[in-house]
Amino acid sequence: MREVFQQELREVQDRLVEMSTLVEFSIDNATRAFNESDVSLAEKVIAGDSRIDSAAKSLDELAIDILARQQPVARDLRIVVSALRISASLERMGDLAEHIAQLARYRFPEKVIPKSLRSTFHEMGTLDVAIAKKLTELLKSEDVKLAEEIRNEDDRIDELHVSVFDAVLGETWKGAAVDTVDATLASRYHERFADHAVTIAKNIQYLATGNLVGSDS
Amino acid sequence: MREVFQQELREVQDRLVEMSTLVEFSIDNATRAFNESDVSLAEKVIAGDSRIDSAAKSLDELAIDILARQQPVARDLRIVVSALRISASLERMGDLAEHIAQLARYRFPEKVIPKSLRSTFHEMGTLDVAIAKKLTELLKSEDVKLAEEIRNEDDRIDELHVSVFDAVLGETWKGAAVDTVDATLASRYHERFADHAVTIAKNIQYLATGNLVGSDS
Repeated sequence: MREVFQQELREVQDRLVEMSTLVEFSIDNATRAFNESDVSLAEKVIAGDSRIDSAAKSLDELAIDILARQQPVARDLRIVVSALRISASLERMGDLAEHIAQLARYRFPEKVIPKSLRSTFHEMGTLDVAIAKKLTELLKSEDVKLAEEIRNEDDRIDELHVSVFDAVLGETWKGAAVDTVDATLASRYHERFADHAVTIAKNIQYLATGNLVGSDS
Repeated sequence: MREVFQQELREVQDRLVEMSTLVEFSIDNATRAFNESDVSLAEKVIAGDSRIDSAAKSLDELAIDILARQQPVARDLRIVVSALRISASLERMGDLAEHIAQLARYRFPEKVIPKSLRSTFHEMGTLDVAIAKKLTELLKSEDVKLAEEIRNEDDRIDELHVSVFDAVLGETWKGAAVDTVDATLASRYHERFADHAVTIAKNIQYLATGNLVGSDS
């Protein structure tokens, strides 16, 4: 029984890693579509999100099934509950990657972001992709050093997020309303993507320590 | 044992109703602070969000404790898992009410939204408050008719959300970049608030039918 349970937990972990890998591809393609105005890549991200949604759904069903059959307690129980939380966050990260791709599609063939902000969004996108890759590694290895790195990268994204507002609200901003809207939404999506990664990192920390850490705002 | 468990489930339900009531007050005050540029009301919402966060945290601890001690199966298990999901959504709704209040505070003593959009945001706010009230009732009664009403009100909020973008991107828009940013973010927050209510309504539907419904994007 115990051995079966351990095998099922590994299955849960494998599925989280798979989901995270899908999210990684999605944000990588979304940020490239966004930065390069590549509409076919954007379409690919948008079409691919349903795969992440169904992976989340089937992982949730598996986790609930394990709770019912195995009746885990203590750390084992926390692993399964955390898996439900992590799956929900990964699903949202997929949605946010899709939203970034949608912005690129809406504005095509125009570039979605004016020249003056391109390097900022390039850096935000690169950080989101790096965070997604580290998240996959963290889910594989539970190496808390990676959780720390994700938090640091999220801090940098928060700085960039603030800098986008400074730019848009500054005296030298020449963008039209459409540029202002796009920059506002795109910055918010990039920032929320990283927030969810931090929430997942906290969940993994919860597994390691048993201290429940609330999701951040 | 069974009776104790039923009592614990009622405790979970009562706590969800309490949380939802806090969210209801929060969005009511946030939208009033936002529409009337009432900075002290905004401060109250911002300070009050930690109460919702700790309610979520303690509810999650209770739910996990029930899973460990009572080892529920079938519908009982689904109730406890749904409670975890609902608590996470209510916590986010509290965050979004806080974000709306923050916008009012940032722009004080200026009004946060230009005249031409005030009636739109007034309607969005009224709908969000109505949705929050219905959510509390739904959590009390599990009356699926209320879930239907919440979905309809969410559809109307989605229309208003689109109309904000139409206004901001239209030829007659005279707002400065700061107005465009505020309208974009405020509209997004109002819309996401309602989305979470719909997600919770789906979770309650899941309890009633046993069909897992994924969270929407």
